[in-house]
Amino acid sequence: MIKIICIGKLKEAYLKEAVDDYIARINKYHKIQIIELPDSNIEEEKEKILKNITSKEYIISLEIEGTPLDSKQLSDKINNTLIHYSTITFIIGSSTGLSDEIKQRSNYHLSFSNLTFPHGLFRLILLEQIYRSFKIINNETYHK
Amino acid sequence: MIKIICIGKLKEAYLKEAVDDYIARINKYHKIQIIELPDSNIEEEKEKILKNITSKEYIISLEIEGTPLDSKQLSDKINNTLIHYSTITFIIGSSTGLSDEIKQRSNYHLSFSNLTFPHGLFRLILLEQIYRSFKIINNETYHK
Repeated sequence: MIKIICIGKLKEAYLKEAVDDYIARINKYHKIQIIELPDSNIEEEKEKILKNITSKEYIISLEIEGTPLDSKQLSDKINNTLIHYSTITFIIGSSTGLSDEIKQRSNYHLSFSNLTFPHGLFRLILLEQIYRSFKIINNETYHK
Repeated sequence: MIKIICIGKLKEAYLKEAVDDYIARINKYHKIQIIELPDSNIEEEKEKILKNITSKEYIISLEIEGTPLDSKQLSDKINNTLIHYSTITFIIGSSTGLSDEIKQRSNYHLSFSNLTFPHGLFRLILLEQIYRSFKIINNETYHK
């Protein structure tokens, strides 16, 4: 299973539609679950995140300072990890970032960009890349 | 003026809404124009792009292999360039990429990510970063 833990609600209706579209697309390839937690402060967010992960999950935290991968490398990462783990959990922090404890628990620190994005748009970007990963894993063309 | 030259139509309604939202937001700070050209082949796309730029414009082409900037650096780049140029033109290629001639004409090669994005989503990502740049330039908080 692919699990995405994210902080904060989606405000714009168009963003909800976009996110739902990609969840439906990904679901054709793999089970995906979004866990949306309320934003508060970094300490409370940490506690809520920890309650939503188990020791058996492979955690990928999204961090500006993480390792940059290209789309092929990300698809390989997902494909290879799913051999050994039944669940990959991506964690997107709020604008206040992720606590050190979450970063330490994380198995992999992934960077999508040096740029800072709003968390809602970032959720969409991550979903699109997960969808793209499954297209690559399944050798399907994807040029849009 | 900020000009964005992009290849290919936006397919999803939610993406059009998202793009229109950010155009409206940017317009409060700076004039912005989107030039959407039909996708065909790299040679024809090149010709159409060249017809839509003048020698006086500062061209920033979006290329995976370009220079990665963070959001503050991008806002500085936009701010400093607008002192010397009346128009900054961003060029987003289609899935076939940009021709070498366009890359050579370009004043700056900018990379947002090592990841490959669909051109429509990329247009939204670019607009959000331009909006963010003007928020930074105007010392306004932006935490969403």
